[in-house]
Amino acid sequence: MSFHETFSEAWQLRYGTEAPSDRPDVEAFLRHRSVRKYAPTPVPESTLAALIATAQSAATSSNLQLWSVISVQDPERRAEIARLCGDQAQVRSAPWFLAFFADHHRLRQAALAAGESPDGLDYVEFFAMALVDVALAAERMVCAAESIGLGICYIGALRNHPAEVQRLLQLPSGTFGVFGLCLGYPEQGSRAEIKPRLPQESVWFRETYPGDVGIGDYDDRMRDFYEAQKMSGEATWSQRSGRRVDGFHMSGREVLKEWIDRMGFSRR
Amino acid sequence: MSFHETFSEAWQLRYGTEAPSDRPDVEAFLRHRSVRKYAPTPVPESTLAALIATAQSAATSSNLQLWSVISVQDPERRAEIARLCGDQAQVRSAPWFLAFFADHHRLRQAALAAGESPDGLDYVEFFAMALVDVALAAERMVCAAESIGLGICYIGALRNHPAEVQRLLQLPSGTFGVFGLCLGYPEQGSRAEIKPRLPQESVWFRETYPGDVGIGDYDDRMRDFYEAQKMSGEATWSQRSGRRVDGFHMSGREVLKEWIDRMGFSRR
Repeated sequence: MSFHETFSEAWQLRYGTEAPSDRPDVEAFLRHRSVRKYAPTPVPESTLAALIATAQSAATSSNLQLWSVISVQDPERRAEIARLCGDQAQVRSAPWFLAFFADHHRLRQAALAAGESPDGLDYVEFFAMALVDVALAAERMVCAAESIGLGICYIGALRNHPAEVQRLLQLPSGTFGVFGLCLGYPEQGSRAEIKPRLPQESVWFRETYPGDVGIGDYDDRMRDFYEAQKMSGEATWSQRSGRRVDGFHMSGREVLKEWIDRMGFSRR
Repeated sequence: MSFHETFSEAWQLRYGTEAPSDRPDVEAFLRHRSVRKYAPTPVPESTLAALIATAQSAATSSNLQLWSVISVQDPERRAEIARLCGDQAQVRSAPWFLAFFADHHRLRQAALAAGESPDGLDYVEFFAMALVDVALAAERMVCAAESIGLGICYIGALRNHPAEVQRLLQLPSGTFGVFGLCLGYPEQGSRAEIKPRLPQESVWFRETYPGDVGIGDYDDRMRDFYEAQKMSGEATWSQRSGRRVDGFHMSGREVLKEWIDRMGFSRR
């Protein structure tokens, strides 16, 4: 199945306000939601090859292409990576699971083979660049996938156990698993919902950053959303999100700085 | 104008090989190129509002929405930011210029107001998360913009002078300008080209990272591309890219680590 909200419906779900009357034809891009339950319908490898081509068509800084992707399809290995990714059922069940990487390794090897000295890669600039590259690539692929009726779920929990992920996928120095991606057709009657977002005026500013950046009615809208979704620990967005970043809910990711140093990133 | 390569044509330009016969309907996502010359056709603010809504519809880790965007339209301020972004003409001339930020500030303020202690934000995990969030948002917006005939150019040079950009845009602590984005209709007869990319087998791996990651015929294809584009310093991709990351072509970005520390990111 695929999702079919109109522009007005999707806008209302995102912002809780009536959509402006003057609207370009971009409603397909408003319909994103995380899909955690997939139909058994297989997704052919040829489809994935076309989607990888869309990922590679994303912009990449100086054409350095500082990212790569590993598909994990072997059932035992899939079960293992699901365990490493917070035991999320969709990692086990999705027709495809892709692990996306920041990748300095490939360029370093190519440059060395060409007689160049890619020593600048250890500036944090190129760590940031690789994170941006991999996210641009993945999101273009996600937009393309959704345009043909597929659903996806990003898996940030790929960062929960970086050392184990590195061993399982045999990652060389200069690579770092940034997120996973589940991909497949949403199950029939999927109840995956469009999630409310911050008011546009809290995110898009004119000329300068405002002295006082409010969040409008967002706490109320999100409280309603959490209740409708029967999400545990109902509270406002500010409260839930504040707790998420209190330093006590790191899911193992507190080691990230040490890990990226060890993998050869971000030393200066 | 907009671009109209077929799937086969775009695939051929990306990879230099014949497209597989079994292909889903995603050719629009293969056609991306950087557009540096824009038609004078205005892009209404209502169009931008719809595109910002697509950006906000991108996935965001734990719904934290760790990004924001500032449009710079005032002519004097536009000229100033163009100067700070390597004096690139398209920054001056594009109908819209958007500066995209990693943003911890808004969440920190909201959490503090709700009585939470968002101290964990200074883990590098949340710096990485903000970079991913901002890139996912921008790329969904870019895909939406391209789908209605607009063209874009990312401006990594927003990182060339972080302190001056911070002053111009009055950025508070906990924010950091990641890239700019030029947006407008491509000029009539635009010669912006689809750029070749690494072979798919150099980027997409099965199950594990290969011991020896080659780049196939990419150096030859890129040499041909550089020559056809009359780009200075013709060489192979490995040579050009190796020099780009040799630590001597940082365009001011060697201060990034110090800067993000100063702006309150990535301390542990």
